[in-house]
Amino acid sequence: MAQGLFITVEGIDGCGKTTQAELIAAALEAVGHDVLRLREPGGVAISEKIRAILLDPENGEMGDVCELLLYEAARAQLVHQVIEPALAAGKTVICDRFYDSTTAYQAFADGLDRATVAQANALAVGDCRPSLTLVFDLPVDEAYRRRSDRAAEDRLELKGLEFQVKVAEGFRTIAAEEPARVKLIDAARPVDEVFESVRAELIGLGLDV
Amino acid sequence: MAQGLFITVEGIDGCGKTTQAELIAAALEAVGHDVLRLREPGGVAISEKIRAILLDPENGEMGDVCELLLYEAARAQLVHQVIEPALAAGKTVICDRFYDSTTAYQAFADGLDRATVAQANALAVGDCRPSLTLVFDLPVDEAYRRRSDRAAEDRLELKGLEFQVKVAEGFRTIAAEEPARVKLIDAARPVDEVFESVRAELIGLGLDV
Repeated sequence: MAQGLFITVEGIDGCGKTTQAELIAAALEAVGHDVLRLREPGGVAISEKIRAILLDPENGEMGDVCELLLYEAARAQLVHQVIEPALAAGKTVICDRFYDSTTAYQAFADGLDRATVAQANALAVGDCRPSLTLVFDLPVDEAYRRRSDRAAEDRLELKGLEFQVKVAEGFRTIAAEEPARVKLIDAARPVDEVFESVRAELIGLGLDV
Repeated sequence: MAQGLFITVEGIDGCGKTTQAELIAAALEAVGHDVLRLREPGGVAISEKIRAILLDPENGEMGDVCELLLYEAARAQLVHQVIEPALAAGKTVICDRFYDSTTAYQAFADGLDRATVAQANALAVGDCRPSLTLVFDLPVDEAYRRRSDRAAEDRLELKGLEFQVKVAEGFRTIAAEEPARVKLIDAARPVDEVFESVRAELIGLGLDV
């Protein structure tokens, strides 16, 4: 059986990537793909345990490198246990966030050395790299407004706007550096218009959607 | 204050490294060193939580790379939270096992790609590398006999003799590759004779022991 297709969707919180991932899944299922949708850390038990350490407020002394390596350990397990077997079985995998998020958040925004983050990403995923990565690009204030529609924001999140700007710029830089794999999609439009741009990228990949 | 001295002791289980670490600590304290003895993962809360995931028999589906990255995450936290601050305060740190164990066990014995393990080690420790690493070299059957004196061995451990042989060979290879840092000590002798060889290495480092 042919190796399946691996697509990742990326962008800041509130950019609309989850909605677009749903539309991509529906479009590909309509033309016969067996689609597996994932979101890091993806419901793998081991990765969830690692995530619990990352999120535990008791672990405030955690250093940047420990944090990075824990994210990568969780990713490595998701790749090993779920993504690689699914692709080997010919499935189409659509993953909400993958290693580009680590580059954008830990390197571009948190300031970790970029070569360090690139090495850690490479260790975690090996040869399991997406064929297509869609970055949904939206001004941070617009993403923030959309999120405010959903839930009240606290002071910490307000303080985080500058951080989000660095993340968004990081994603744009990644797209500029790897134009063959990473496509920047203007997400400041209605959902159906955004999806038309997504569809064009899928067609560019030779898909009949 | 001058940066402290960082020494690691390595070798297969039963090689006598813990006893020698105690003797090194006593000898250095006798000449005025403020010694911190550690054993990976070293009692740091975050690293203990990571270790709990590694040791949990429920996690049998864990892949090699996830396991490697978890060991490295625990090490990174120990370096960040304990070793680097102690060295910066001028203390002498003696650590029972460090990254050479990962190379010996995960690369030489488990068969993980050696470059991958080297990169993961480098990510975890950064510039925090030992000035001196003492590898206590002992034939595996002798180490096994010594351990049998202490506790009954089960079938799994019997089956592991071939694995231990690979680990011991790994340590010898590391010592041959990095002769300036890593010293191979013949541990198949009485404790006091072994320590005389250790003392010679400490004197070689300019220490007045």
